[in-house]
Amino acid sequence: MAKSWATLGVDLHLEPAGPGLRRGLTDALRDAVRTGRLAPGTRLPSSRSLAADLGIARNTVADAYADLVAEGWLTARQGSGTRVAERRVVPSAGTVRRPRERGRPEYDLRPGFPDLAAFPRTEWLRAARRALTSAPYEALGYGDPHGRPELRTALAGYLSRVRGVHADPERILVCGGISHGLRILGAVLRARGVGTVAVESYGLRAHWKILHGAGLRTAPLPFDELGTDPGQLVEGWGGVSRSGEGNCGSATPPAERPRAVLLTPAHQFPMGSPLHRDRRAAVVDWARRTGGLVLEDDYDGEFRYDRQPVGALQGLDPDRVVYLGTASKSLAPGLRLGWMVLPPTLVEEAAAAKGGIDTCGALDQLTLAEFLTSGAYDRHVRAARLRYRRRRDALVAALAERAPQVRATGIAAGLHAVLRLPPGTERSVVQAAHWQGLALDGLTRYRHPDALADPLDALVVGYGTPPDHGWSGALDALCATLP
Amino acid sequence: MAKSWATLGVDLHLEPAGPGLRRGLTDALRDAVRTGRLAPGTRLPSSRSLAADLGIARNTVADAYADLVAEGWLTARQGSGTRVAERRVVPSAGTVRRPRERGRPEYDLRPGFPDLAAFPRTEWLRAARRALTSAPYEALGYGDPHGRPELRTALAGYLSRVRGVHADPERILVCGGISHGLRILGAVLRARGVGTVAVESYGLRAHWKILHGAGLRTAPLPFDELGTDPGQLVEGWGGVSRSGEGNCGSATPPAERPRAVLLTPAHQFPMGSPLHRDRRAAVVDWARRTGGLVLEDDYDGEFRYDRQPVGALQGLDPDRVVYLGTASKSLAPGLRLGWMVLPPTLVEEAAAAKGGIDTCGALDQLTLAEFLTSGAYDRHVRAARLRYRRRRDALVAALAERAPQVRATGIAAGLHAVLRLPPGTERSVVQAAHWQGLALDGLTRYRHPDALADPLDALVVGYGTPPDHGWSGALDALCATLP
Repeated sequence: MAKSWATLGVDLHLEPAGPGLRRGLTDALRDAVRTGRLAPGTRLPSSRSLAADLGIARNTVADAYADLVAEGWLTARQGSGTRVAERRVVPSAGTVRRPRERGRPEYDLRPGFPDLAAFPRTEWLRAARRALTSAPYEALGYGDPHGRPELRTALAGYLSRVRGVHADPERILVCGGISHGLRILGAVLRARGVGTVAVESYGLRAHWKILHGAGLRTAPLPFDELGTDPGQLVEGWGGVSRSGEGNCGSATPPAERPRAVLLTPAHQFPMGSPLHRDRRAAVVDWARRTGGLVLEDDYDGEFRYDRQPVGALQGLDPDRVVYLGTASKSLAPGLRLGWMVLPPTLVEEAAAAKGGIDTCGALDQLTLAEFLTSGAYDRHVRAARLRYRRRRDALVAALAERAPQVRATGIAAGLHAVLRLPPGTERSVVQAAHWQGLALDGLTRYRHPDALADPLDALVVGYGTPPDHGWSGALDALCATLP
Repeated sequence: MAKSWATLGVDLHLEPAGPGLRRGLTDALRDAVRTGRLAPGTRLPSSRSLAADLGIARNTVADAYADLVAEGWLTARQGSGTRVAERRVVPSAGTVRRPRERGRPEYDLRPGFPDLAAFPRTEWLRAARRALTSAPYEALGYGDPHGRPELRTALAGYLSRVRGVHADPERILVCGGISHGLRILGAVLRARGVGTVAVESYGLRAHWKILHGAGLRTAPLPFDELGTDPGQLVEGWGGVSRSGEGNCGSATPPAERPRAVLLTPAHQFPMGSPLHRDRRAAVVDWARRTGGLVLEDDYDGEFRYDRQPVGALQGLDPDRVVYLGTASKSLAPGLRLGWMVLPPTLVEEAAAAKGGIDTCGALDQLTLAEFLTSGAYDRHVRAARLRYRRRRDALVAALAERAPQVRATGIAAGLHAVLRLPPGTERSVVQAAHWQGLALDGLTRYRHPDALADPLDALVVGYGTPPDHGWSGALDALCATLP
């Protein structure tokens, strides 16, 4: 049934009943706000009177209002009713938007994804054919939890050559990505009696959750203009580890000095700077002095544009640093392949925590080994680096021309940049971006709930995901949302 | 060109020019510091003088120094030049020692492996090519924890056609094999407050351990001449669940009535009989009446030789039975691909317990989907069934001729048989087999530590593993060890 809410000029196409009714109402109201038919500040009828008008249940209207308040389209204040939100950032009038699939943004600028359109399908299949043709029978059986020896050998050579990792195959444990590696390490640390892991003030919530799931607390280190500051680890822990929103889970032990630290030394995620050289040395010294363990998340170490990549921290002390790497950024997350280079004393514990058998598919492992040893991996990374660098350059140029007041940081490496915003504007800019059909994240999303420093307003803009032909359109949409 | 930087004992193997030159210098210096040839505190020559020494550009040296300062190997201070960082260089603890691999047996008759030599490599690669060529970009990204929709759709069709499973794609969760499925289900059951899972008196220790690892107890059901007897579930639990060797782990709850049961209804592992029809009905009735859950491990349901396979128990009540299947027996364990068909109420809990993202490689999932829908899977299973049946027949014939006193049971289906032995002889026969270069297992290995029935003496003889040409030699060796 189609109903017209004549007084406000809102056309409602409603299904007779069920969840479709609420969604129909929500969509119609959202559209009316988006297109300006409901002007900012307009007061909406009470849910009771609108429900009576439309002949539907009052709760359905109340629910639709609540959804739109949560999404930022409406505001609800005690005593002033429900109003259309005063949008502070108006999307540029000139942009013509194509209708898009519900839920799917036109451009996806969230960080953490490589350009999936550039996955080297032909070369991968070629490597798969060579690998499977020459694989021994036993490679198809239940595997050793360490992972296929062909892959561990290939990784040892690659990581020592390219990332300065002290790697030999016996130290390497293949896993299903960095998340899986952290799940394994979380179990190992907890079994060793560790209670708290120091983390960075900015990072991935999913990683903190994995550590919490293992029964560990996470305690953020300070972050200053030089980046993550491990000084508290070194000088003694001053009680930053505390209970808080970030430490969910039931079985977390009481706060204590961290005995492990999770870092992104080559390219802080998402802030983008490398760990300062003095601090690199300080972290390793701390680990040596106290028997602590450093978990080095080297998620995109291959992608540095203006000079040689910063070598892995693990090279400074392979017995105190666990190196974690992944094919998710260099090739594709769908492969679910990552690796850890472990101190020898941890290898068997980690293999047991992995489940005692290999949980990673043998064929992809053999294919990646072939891909590495044949040189196809190097060629792919080199080509990808050039492509991302061009995107980075286009981003910087577009900002300089069209949003000169926005400073891009963390642009020397990786697949994303951080765009600093005027204080207090992050939320509205992210909201405006969503109106533009642009999926992107504010920095707040990456801030540890217990972080001590003042929040910074910024966007985290990934440039991996849009395919090459979509990049300039994505840049246009981005610049249109910036203040 | 190889140059020796004689005064400092650093050997440099330098490429004539380009980025390799700088990298060669950086690597050589890093190695010299790591190995202690350049001692902490050593002052390095100025970049100008080293460059002159080596006949290379001064910038190359300055860049190499800067890289190593950034990595923490060197320090650069105004007025004191570039020095090797003050740090005790800890030599790596060296390679990890793992127990020496013992001599491989000449014939491997342990159960649980398919014939890996018969893995359809060419057909698999063909399917991989078709799957990867047509895959959408997003298939290479971080995946939905339910698994690829292509595979879930293909499995739904296959399982309902071949195994009588009530399957639709929305109920299916792709996992890394039955062990992984049980790990997920163990977490779900424990979170729902289940304390004890009834299991069969004979089964896989690895599966019981997974349930114990989730904090659950396992309590064995009786086993009689009709197979596993679920009568105790149905008539009330008589205290069979007790603490014992089988229930290791620290956090096991006190004994209680089982609220879930793990069974191998189509082909009891390892005893080989299907669950009696009256008992199938009784188990499902129990689950309905009590709100219990049945976990159906259908590890080799496709392989039945003398009549139609027994349909899946899940078909009797899809809301009370979780169906678990795997490609480990039909194709190869190395694929690490399995699947669960779940009651709708469990799907989201299981997806969350899987980790909230897909942990299984997308390419193998897409390939298996293509393999199923193209008919290649059916063709492969049919050919494998014929081959295993011939092996089974050869085993039965050899026993009839050369060890007529040994009775083979569980031979109607699957990839293994149980050879009953005179009481008290199992251990010596297994020992004798090892002396013959024959790897095989006694039945004791598969008996739950809390099983109530008297132990039976028997061998569990798998006929999947030896390649076709090795089967008659394996049979000779086996018959030579039998009493």
